[in-house]
Amino acid sequence: MNDFASLANQVMLRCDQLGAITQSPGMVDRRYLTPQHRQANDVVALWMREAGMTVWQDAAGNQWGRYHSTDANARSLVLGSHLDTVPNGGKYDGMLGVIAPLAAVQHCFDNGIRFPFHIDIVGFGDEEGTRFGSTLLGSRALTGRWKEDWQLLRDENHLSLPEAMAEFGLSFEKVADATIDPASVLGYLEVHIEQGPVLEDKNLPVGWVTAIAGAKRLNVQVNGMAGHAGTVPMGMRQDALTAASEMVLAVESIANQFGIVATVGRLETKPGAVNVIPGQVNFSLDIRSEHDHKRDAALKLIQEIFRDVAERRKVDVNWQQNHHADAVHCDPHLSQTLAQAIQLSGLPAVSLPSGAGHDAMAMDAICPVSMLFVRCKGGISHHPGESITAEDVATSLQVIYQFFKSFSPVD
Amino acid sequence: MNDFASLANQVMLRCDQLGAITQSPGMVDRRYLTPQHRQANDVVALWMREAGMTVWQDAAGNQWGRYHSTDANARSLVLGSHLDTVPNGGKYDGMLGVIAPLAAVQHCFDNGIRFPFHIDIVGFGDEEGTRFGSTLLGSRALTGRWKEDWQLLRDENHLSLPEAMAEFGLSFEKVADATIDPASVLGYLEVHIEQGPVLEDKNLPVGWVTAIAGAKRLNVQVNGMAGHAGTVPMGMRQDALTAASEMVLAVESIANQFGIVATVGRLETKPGAVNVIPGQVNFSLDIRSEHDHKRDAALKLIQEIFRDVAERRKVDVNWQQNHHADAVHCDPHLSQTLAQAIQLSGLPAVSLPSGAGHDAMAMDAICPVSMLFVRCKGGISHHPGESITAEDVATSLQVIYQFFKSFSPVD
Repeated sequence: MNDFASLANQVMLRCDQLGAITQSPGMVDRRYLTPQHRQANDVVALWMREAGMTVWQDAAGNQWGRYHSTDANARSLVLGSHLDTVPNGGKYDGMLGVIAPLAAVQHCFDNGIRFPFHIDIVGFGDEEGTRFGSTLLGSRALTGRWKEDWQLLRDENHLSLPEAMAEFGLSFEKVADATIDPASVLGYLEVHIEQGPVLEDKNLPVGWVTAIAGAKRLNVQVNGMAGHAGTVPMGMRQDALTAASEMVLAVESIANQFGIVATVGRLETKPGAVNVIPGQVNFSLDIRSEHDHKRDAALKLIQEIFRDVAERRKVDVNWQQNHHADAVHCDPHLSQTLAQAIQLSGLPAVSLPSGAGHDAMAMDAICPVSMLFVRCKGGISHHPGESITAEDVATSLQVIYQFFKSFSPVD
Repeated sequence: MNDFASLANQVMLRCDQLGAITQSPGMVDRRYLTPQHRQANDVVALWMREAGMTVWQDAAGNQWGRYHSTDANARSLVLGSHLDTVPNGGKYDGMLGVIAPLAAVQHCFDNGIRFPFHIDIVGFGDEEGTRFGSTLLGSRALTGRWKEDWQLLRDENHLSLPEAMAEFGLSFEKVADATIDPASVLGYLEVHIEQGPVLEDKNLPVGWVTAIAGAKRLNVQVNGMAGHAGTVPMGMRQDALTAASEMVLAVESIANQFGIVATVGRLETKPGAVNVIPGQVNFSLDIRSEHDHKRDAALKLIQEIFRDVAERRKVDVNWQQNHHADAVHCDPHLSQTLAQAIQLSGLPAVSLPSGAGHDAMAMDAICPVSMLFVRCKGGISHHPGESITAEDVATSLQVIYQFFKSFSPVD
């Protein structure tokens, strides 16, 4: 067994250990600023120290470790991801992006290898937003984009964010201390399970990410005319559901045509009785692309079709956009280095977009970002069925190590 | 103003008066075996007596009045409908079928006209099934089809049907006394608002009913694969909702093709999150026709299409039928008499099927049945917006009177 294979087994073990730190017995569930967050930070800090790193916790509760450069005045290459989970989540979403880089650093430490830059590893306290309903609280603290009105956020027990921070030993007023100077950071690399089926389908352990897709979300309402399912002839109906069904199929068809993803995840009929023609249908639309212009052109066409369907079927349609995030493009220089690292590990450097959001989206505000995806079974995430192999982890460790070796800062 | 116009105004007033007898302030709501049921029976009995009728209440709480024949040994022509309502219902669904025949009898009484048959008018205590969840309790008592296990039915306050009957002064054990001898009944005519838009569309006040449609109801379940709305490419999805959308449109298309009605009234997505591809969709299917063979052929084709869609989209589909009632055909002799009565009233005798269920369905078990539909505004029923005009009522009174005059029993 070579060194990376052995370290990969340790990574798997450590993910199991972190997964056991849970606030809900019987499932993985670890949220921001909880005693379990504290425990996770402590055990990660212990492992960081074992890898020769200097450790600290920042003013937002993120856990840091630094593997020092040979040059005391060097800037930092930051690697990280989040240590929080969704309720009944998996053991790898987030955690892998902390534990795998840590194992790669361990390899360097064990072999006395140092670089002309610091390697900082960060375990963010909150990415999922499960406790306070607002995502990326950890990484956004670093970027100086912490918002004053977050003091009003409350968890399910009505504890406010400032109160929870105080319980954790932090201060809402001092969170700005977590902000880091962009000039000190060379770039950010996030390792993450793919959360999709593409790498599995291509039979590849890893791939590099081109961009984190930009998303728009809409609530769509179709208003027809409710009526008795027995007494209103087909030709006299204004059925909101048959209209909505055409719209759902149009969303799928346009997404295929534009090579993007679009999803109607929630659809409700009103009044929703077996013997009443639906008078109203409400549905959600989630549309994403790594190319904002493609997404917007597809959405425009979808909306035109919605209007056409509504006019033809004598129903009304209206929508409200309730979310908009533009795509974040991974840095070409970092990504090229990452692609080379994959090739140097003996694999084809396949790229794919990220359809899900990640801490890298927040980090993009202060530095160039890049991401390495690791194959996961069935594309399953946010579920106890989340699964990766030690072999794929070993490959990712090799790639991270190659990345360290190949990386040269652009000034 | 002729006699029928004047009586029609009285019918409108009496529907208002009955509508005011409600268990829920601010809305029409009158359920089986309540104090309001008692009040409605009492006021109808009073009006019956004023029209020269003998009155009685049967063992199921149905209110009867008899306008005696010149022949004491005559058999009866029965007219009627129900006096109960849905919560927040209208003033005409059911009531019109009691009050309008009563006004026609009043006309006969006022003018000293008698027939070679008794005219029995019945106000059924329960058709809607709102209180005990089982419909047609009143009319089914007449036919000897009262079921022993109905003693287990309970209302929303957990009062059992036998307990409610006792409170009303009836006995569950003695309900068989309400059964009537089929040999004593010549036929049944039910006057009812259309509850659909066909007569309004044809600009006609009344129409005669060919049949009460037979219905089948199914719960359909589509099982695909839930997945992340951002990370699963379109081509790798097993989206239960896009599959279900094709099915909904197929239901509509096949119903059009067969000239029947079919409705998906309820559709739910699971997990139903904006950012998750639906893994499961459950929907209802209600399919009706006055011709059972057409309904069954259409359903067979719909099920074949469901299977094809599921196979093509790599999802599973299964269904359970939870309701089946075959069509009830109106009696040709009664219907011909009714059509003639419409023509004698100076109108074209247009026929239409009834897509909704009625007491006539139960009465069909013991005698020939027929129905007269009266135009209602917008086809609206089971809603405070239920609306008819005094002019249309006057027409229906004339038709009922012509029916009395033209009717000759077939022996």
